[in-house]
Amino acid sequence: MHFSTVEAVLEYEVKEPTHFCFNLEAAQWPTQRIVSEKLELSPPVIARCFEDPHFGHRLVRFDAPPGKLALHYKADVQLLQQYHDPNLEEAPVRDIPDEIFHYLLPSRYCESDVLCAAAQKMFGELKPGVSRVRKVVDWITENITYRPGSTCSTTTAKDVYVQRSGVCRDFAHLGITFCRALSIPARMVVGYVWFDEPPQDFHAIFEAWVGGRWVLFDPTGMAPADRLVRVGTGRDAKDVAFCTYFGNIELKRKEVMVLEHDPRPARVVRPREAAVA
Amino acid sequence: MHFSTVEAVLEYEVKEPTHFCFNLEAAQWPTQRIVSEKLELSPPVIARCFEDPHFGHRLVRFDAPPGKLALHYKADVQLLQQYHDPNLEEAPVRDIPDEIFHYLLPSRYCESDVLCAAAQKMFGELKPGVSRVRKVVDWITENITYRPGSTCSTTTAKDVYVQRSGVCRDFAHLGITFCRALSIPARMVVGYVWFDEPPQDFHAIFEAWVGGRWVLFDPTGMAPADRLVRVGTGRDAKDVAFCTYFGNIELKRKEVMVLEHDPRPARVVRPREAAVA
Amino acid sequence: MHFSTVEAVLEYEVKEPTHFCFNLEAAQWPTQRIVSEKLELSPPVIARCFEDPHFGHRLVRFDAPPGKLALHYKADVQLLQQYHDPNLEEAPVRDIPDEIFHYLLPSRYCESDVLCAAAQKMFGELKPGVSRVRKVVDWITENITYRPGSTCSTTTAKDVYVQRSGVCRDFAHLGITFCRALSIPARMVVGYVWFDEPPQDFHAIFEAWVGGRWVLFDPTGMAPADRLVRVGTGRDAKDVAFCTYFGNIELKRKEVMVLEHDPRPARVVRPREAAVA
Amino acid sequence: MHFSTVEAVLEYEVKEPTHFCFNLEAAQWPTQRIVSEKLELSPPVIARCFEDPHFGHRLVRFDAPPGKLALHYKADVQLLQQYHDPNLEEAPVRDIPDEIFHYLLPSRYCESDVLCAAAQKMFGELKPGVSRVRKVVDWITENITYRPGSTCSTTTAKDVYVQRSGVCRDFAHLGITFCRALSIPARMVVGYVWFDEPPQDFHAIFEAWVGGRWVLFDPTGMAPADRLVRVGTGRDAKDVAFCTYFGNIELKRKEVMVLEHDPRPARVVRPREAAVA
Repeated sequence: MHFSTVEAVLEYEVKEPTHFCFNLEAAQWPTQRIVSEKLELSPPVIARCFEDPHFGHRLVRFDAPPGKLALHYKADVQLLQQYHDPNLEEAPVRDIPDEIFHYLLPSRYCESDVLCAAAQKMFGELKPGVSRVRKVVDWITENITYRPGSTCSTTTAKDVYVQRSGVCRDFAHLGITFCRALSIPARMVVGYVWFDEPPQDFHAIFEAWVGGRWVLFDPTGMAPADRLVRVGTGRDAKDVAFCTYFGNIELKRKEVMVLEHDPRPARVVRPREAAVA
Repeated sequence: MHFSTVEAVLEYEVKEPTHFCFNLEAAQWPTQRIVSEKLELSPPVIARCFEDPHFGHRLVRFDAPPGKLALHYKADVQLLQQYHDPNLEEAPVRDIPDEIFHYLLPSRYCESDVLCAAAQKMFGELKPGVSRVRKVVDWITENITYRPGSTCSTTTAKDVYVQRSGVCRDFAHLGITFCRALSIPARMVVGYVWFDEPPQDFHAIFEAWVGGRWVLFDPTGMAPADRLVRVGTGRDAKDVAFCTYFGNIELKRKEVMVLEHDPRPARVVRPREAAVA
Repeated sequence: MHFSTVEAVLEYEVKEPTHFCFNLEAAQWPTQRIVSEKLELSPPVIARCFEDPHFGHRLVRFDAPPGKLALHYKADVQLLQQYHDPNLEEAPVRDIPDEIFHYLLPSRYCESDVLCAAAQKMFGELKPGVSRVRKVVDWITENITYRPGSTCSTTTAKDVYVQRSGVCRDFAHLGITFCRALSIPARMVVGYVWFDEPPQDFHAIFEAWVGGRWVLFDPTGMAPADRLVRVGTGRDAKDVAFCTYFGNIELKRKEVMVLEHDPRPARVVRPREAAVA
Repeated sequence: MHFSTVEAVLEYEVKEPTHFCFNLEAAQWPTQRIVSEKLELSPPVIARCFEDPHFGHRLVRFDAPPGKLALHYKADVQLLQQYHDPNLEEAPVRDIPDEIFHYLLPSRYCESDVLCAAAQKMFGELKPGVSRVRKVVDWITENITYRPGSTCSTTTAKDVYVQRSGVCRDFAHLGITFCRALSIPARMVVGYVWFDEPPQDFHAIFEAWVGGRWVLFDPTGMAPADRLVRVGTGRDAKDVAFCTYFGNIELKRKEVMVLEHDPRPARVVRPREAAVA
């Protein structure tokens, strides 16, 4: 069992009355226990908090007037360790439960329909199972360059596959896309985890449904997947944006801090490229 | 109240063991009452029928062995007439209920993020409300050419906006996309309706959330929206495909028949272009 | 030296006054000698024939009135055999002559800028030279499926790379694109050649500039490149379309016939998929 | 007749041996006379200067070793004033000379094939002639937002049409694309001109072939087109890049200075948005 303290500070300049929907809080999720937490908004606003029934994440919606807006979230979270059988098998499609069937379909950022032939050509002949998903992840790690600034909010898995660079959400989108193209349900997971290399930020990884359960994978190799404090789970990045807004705003400050209270085993760190202007 | 008999016949050549998910049956939906129905599969298969909890549609999933596969669905359905106040207003985003908030987001075929500036430029200054959605629909009707064969299963709203041609699902995708880009929740609706011009087929339209309710629009102008027997409701076409399959099949026959038991008022028919080779 | 008789019959329904530019005739080119030829147009039109100074191909331009239009071209052509040293080397960019420098740049259907990282990842570490171009060609042959109907007139190399299928022009576009991305000048070549498998049609291949000369490659493997009677040479398909027109027409008949007067050595034939509806 | 002094300073960090092709010098062109000029390279390199026979621009090619590289170009140029009949007519396609016929075709950044239907829908019914090109330019000026950072080196006219923002080269690409889609030859022109609003930079506009001559248009409205000192002319931006390179470099400084020696008439200035991060 791991124990982490996570924290996010966000500051905005709100330029016109704007509706916000934040997704910052540690999720109520079977794999983690929120020991303590607080979310502060300044100035105080009347916010509606709710838990999304499909995805389990906790959203905060409110209208903000023009001016400064600051959020501060801090939580202590226990993570249950999960051991996965390295021989987990892919399910035939008939055994994929109705409620997760939709994770086989393409989504805004994951055109598994368009990339189907490429995925089949690259991974279609491999032995099905968790080892195949691992091969997909290895291909991404080896063939996509982590490069901040090389993608934007409308970049899709197809774009990333073509241009061969991106950031964590792009890596996750490509992993999800290949899995779905192989008839393996897959979805995005975002949250807090300590990066060996600065700067700290929110992280995006993915999970694939093998052996009758969801198994986490991080194609960036930036952090151990089982240390991630889960915030959101969704079809792709649009379902788990930390901030969705309707109005005119400017992000002035974003700081993410993670403190892991138990030591990590030593591991090989994958160097990241410096940010592109 | 309208009363329709709808019927679909589908025949496939199944070339390898294939998993099917069909979405053919009239939905259990407040606006319609299924008086009688039957769904026949040949050869008989062990099928799982379930109602999707998010979208209300009724799905049939099963594995089919190689060989012929035929489906025949027939239903008698009563449609409640709905009158909409022509002055329905758009809701401010804060009043959009949590459970339909996701209909503001982009989806696989509806890149409302990418087309946001275009939508704002074309429709942003118009008076908000149902009349604005009507302007969006009119723009599509006037500027997009109905042309079978001009699009395919991976065509998105952006493509349609650029190339200015498509079929009913493309028209609906563009309407949905423009609405979401204007912060109006919108979603796809598919079903059965009589076309003034042959051939009969499944139809796709969309509905926008104005005045606190969902209102149907058909940018193709091919049939009156209130005569549609609803089969599926979803973010876009991928949620409401009449057939999603995993395997190798060939569609050998598709016939859709609609009989409206009460006469329609006379209306202007929009001519359709002949199919492109 | 090979000797071929080539022939093309084209028939159009011209629906409004239309300007045509045809590119059907065997090129005046150092590697071939036109022994005899004739081009018939029916009805007779006043046509302007000219040889493009950049590309060497011979164009026929004219206005056609509404009605039938038929072209018949037939030529006997001798092809010089060309032997290429299998050790031809790539030139450093400084040695690429000014007049072919532009064949390093992206073009309408060959986004070598966008696919640069993928090309570098896949082929960047290989030993430079004609053997590297051969590896590019082999990759295309192995990874792209020949499938009539899977692409259209606006399909680009990026699309083909993503969807993994296409026809001869798409294969050539991808080869050109990868070469340019590796700083090897490359361009499209179209012409007449006998296909082992019907139907006969115009063919598109590409040539890369290695060892100080242009060397032909056919990634489809459908015919030996040195048997092609050259019609056009250009940056990509838009420069060498057999028919560019401005108006409203319908192609009613297209027949291409090739007779090779000397036998071919036996070779392995790559099967092609049947046309997609 | 106008008289301008133009100047460009470029400094690079060359990280590996790199081949450069610069296109910075005022073109030898009938509409301008170079009174004096100098181009300095530091460190001194052995450069090959040549004039492109297709486009008339003057290119400088050389290999640079790792280290600093600086270029300084300065020229005094007289511009002939050109008066265009406001009633210039579009030519029927048959009257478009063979040598400019290719300016009707799509190119890398100008997908006039894809945007054909949109152009026809928006401008197809307008009276042909220079006034129609002016309407195209007005549409761009009104509907596209000038926003530095909103596009990149691979952005095409289609992207700009969809996203509704860009910089000068994007505006020019869209103008070229619409013209070609209307069967009006069009091409890009880049050069030096004084901007009413800083910062100074290279500028890109376009010219359309109407009334038997090339007429300049600037859809950004940032400067009078007849004050532009022409550097390059081409199908689109890839033909007229001020720097094409093969290697690994970083641009450290780019300064463009323009001094117009005769006063401009007062004009309405179009405000530009500030740069996007």
